Amino acid sequence: MVQNITILGSTGSIGTQTLQIIDHFQDKFKVMGLSTRGNIDLLEAQIRKYKPLAVAVLEEEKAFQLGNRIKDLKTSVLSGEDGLHLLSTWPDVELVVIALVGFSGLRPTLAALKDNKKVALANKEALVVGGELIMAEARARNITILPIDSEHSAIFQCLQAGHSDEVSRIILTASGGPFLGWEKERLADVTPAQALKHPNWKMGDKITIDSATLMNKGFEVIEARWLFNLDFKQIEVVIHPESIVHSMVEYKDGSTIAQMGLPDMLLPIQYALSYPKRWENTFPRFQWDKSHMLNFIPPNRNNFPCLYYAYNAGEIGGTMPAVLNAANEVAVEQFLNSSISFPQISALLEEIMGRHNVKQNPTLQDISAADNWAREETRIVMQKIKGEC
Amino acid sequence: MVQNITILGSTGSIGTQTLQIIDHFQDKFKVMGLSTRGNIDLLEAQIRKYKPLAVAVLEEEKAFQLGNRIKDLKTSVLSGEDGLHLLSTWPDVELVVIALVGFSGLRPTLAALKDNKKVALANKEALVVGGELIMAEARARNITILPIDSEHSAIFQCLQAGHSDEVSRIILTASGGPFLGWEKERLADVTPAQALKHPNWKMGDKITIDSATLMNKGFEVIEARWLFNLDFKQIEVVIHPESIVHSMVEYKDGSTIAQMGLPDMLLPIQYALSYPKRWENTFPRFQWDKSHMLNFIPPNRNNFPCLYYAYNAGEIGGTMPAVLNAANEVAVEQFLNSSISFPQISALLEEIMGRHNVKQNPTLQDISAADNWAREETRIVMQKIKGEC
Repeated sequence: MVQNITILGSTGSIGTQTLQIIDHFQDKFKVMGLSTRGNIDLLEAQIRKYKPLAVAVLEEEKAFQLGNRIKDLKTSVLSGEDGLHLLSTWPDVELVVIALVGFSGLRPTLAALKDNKKVALANKEALVVGGELIMAEARARNITILPIDSEHSAIFQCLQAGHSDEVSRIILTASGGPFLGWEKERLADVTPAQALKHPNWKMGDKITIDSATLMNKGFEVIEARWLFNLDFKQIEVVIHPESIVHSMVEYKDGSTIAQMGLPDMLLPIQYALSYPKRWENTFPRFQWDKSHMLNFIPPNRNNFPCLYYAYNAGEIGGTMPAVLNAANEVAVEQFLNSSISFPQISALLEEIMGRHNVKQNPTLQDISAADNWAREETRIVMQKIKGEC
Repeated sequence: MVQNITILGSTGSIGTQTLQIIDHFQDKFKVMGLSTRGNIDLLEAQIRKYKPLAVAVLEEEKAFQLGNRIKDLKTSVLSGEDGLHLLSTWPDVELVVIALVGFSGLRPTLAALKDNKKVALANKEALVVGGELIMAEARARNITILPIDSEHSAIFQCLQAGHSDEVSRIILTASGGPFLGWEKERLADVTPAQALKHPNWKMGDKITIDSATLMNKGFEVIEARWLFNLDFKQIEVVIHPESIVHSMVEYKDGSTIAQMGLPDMLLPIQYALSYPKRWENTFPRFQWDKSHMLNFIPPNRNNFPCLYYAYNAGEIGGTMPAVLNAANEVAVEQFLNSSISFPQISALLEEIMGRHNVKQNPTLQDISAADNWAREETRIVMQKIKGEC
């Protein structure tokens, strides 16, 4: 059976790996749509290989350029937010993979769900900022959201071994990033290059910095709260530097089910595409004929406060997670530009959260407004902090 | 809903813990039958507490004594192998827990299955010697055998997260026993007291010695082969000294699902009783707010050959596993009596297996004959070995 699939964000890290899976299982998929923010060189190559019906390019100018380049093909080129919306609701598409980065994933996710499509979600920010809206749409149509994040894929797999009402807590594992065990003082001098060197995972820049601050794990806590309908008290985080145990579910009888594997996104991506089945592949396996040591360490609250800001934002709810996410996007961008220091990322987030007037039960418009407010406010505060330095 | 339950071997380690679970969930069970080899003091106390309809005592003389002691009660006292058979096929019993030790578990297991009863199996030897017979009965009646061994309970739980035809291999964990990492030379001087000091698990004497030789793990390999319908090449053993990961299933997509928990038999016993549900309890939980290090080491073939004798016996099949099991029961008994040394246990097994003419597709009578032959032969060879020393 061939599944019609669209990949939003097909030129990014998750997008290209999703296409790798499709290359392995060519008889199982027809690529209907692809999208990029502005990487039209790669998108053009993908179009020539997969021959989708339509593609979307977020940057209008680039969309125009791409249109000229592929005049020889039948693929329609859409542009901007509207193009992304059209693509995510394209007729006959069954599965939409949301591999967009940041806030931009929310609208297409909602659109795809409202159009009764299956959604495989790699974009954690969509759930962080709009989890309530997304889950309401999914529940209303009885759609299971397929998580692509390795931790949430792990939880999703572990949940197959029991019933959701038998879950006592989940344990999200975190590599701890490149600065695990560092003295707090040393963190002030961290460079973007150092922060971009993740010990286990090869990922995009934004998420790699979020891994270094543990903000990524904080977002995953909020993501898990929504995906698996849990209370924040039921979600624990443990540092596991080897990234072999991808996460765990503890059931009410005290039994813990863990999902393990080499740190490779291909596996969770494949599971999202193959669920509820598992497909044989030739990915490298964990080798049990060698000795291994797996460590589990409680996180250091002092050095990595972002994790706890996420718990706070999540418990406060309403527009607060959107504010945390937006402030973080700006702060990370500025850290990558060497405009602020590594500890200033968390300092900024604390400051912006403190300034926000939360709106509960937000609409998409409220969330969007909070997102805009937080970006603006972060830039203002950042100027102030930089002035003080 | 109340389940009518019989526990064969209720005075042993697994039997008493099964009754502990029943104490926790009194409204879910009616104890119909209990049995003991000869511990009538404890059985009498159990009878007075649980008021079963019938009990069986294997030793005839003890059965007679017990009958006199409980004349004030309505409980019937059965005796010998026939008594055990009657008890395992008692009308209205739905679930029979086989907590017998050694070869003695085979006949009652077959009897209970033939009588269409659910079977929770703690007696691995039954599957080791008669796996083919047992699984044929279970398959014929579509009965799922509920494993109580912690490793097989772990595999059974992990298998809930996928389909059996998607399994690539299973990984049985082993604590490695008290002599993990010892130089081979030192093993010659091991005393029964040392071998009985298991680092993690509190169990009966026989199984504790089997853990020290890794024979127990070898039996579990054969047990797993039957319970989960696997090829021996799909079963790996890894030493995991902390006994937190109880075993794992690797699926064909490369994803490994593991079951974890504190080393406590109450959990696998409860799961066998509660399956397919999980019941909330107050057993101690693994504490993620402390640091943990989990090690995984390939087993040492040289120091612990019993593990590989089990693979050999299993692959040869027929009556060979019964011979290995019988020879091992005698050898362990003699080691506990200080009649032979620790390395002589494995030496004896190798010798006896070499002397056996295997019968394939054995009947229960063939297995029983092989069992008798091996016990006799082991005693003969043992005398010879002792003479040589």
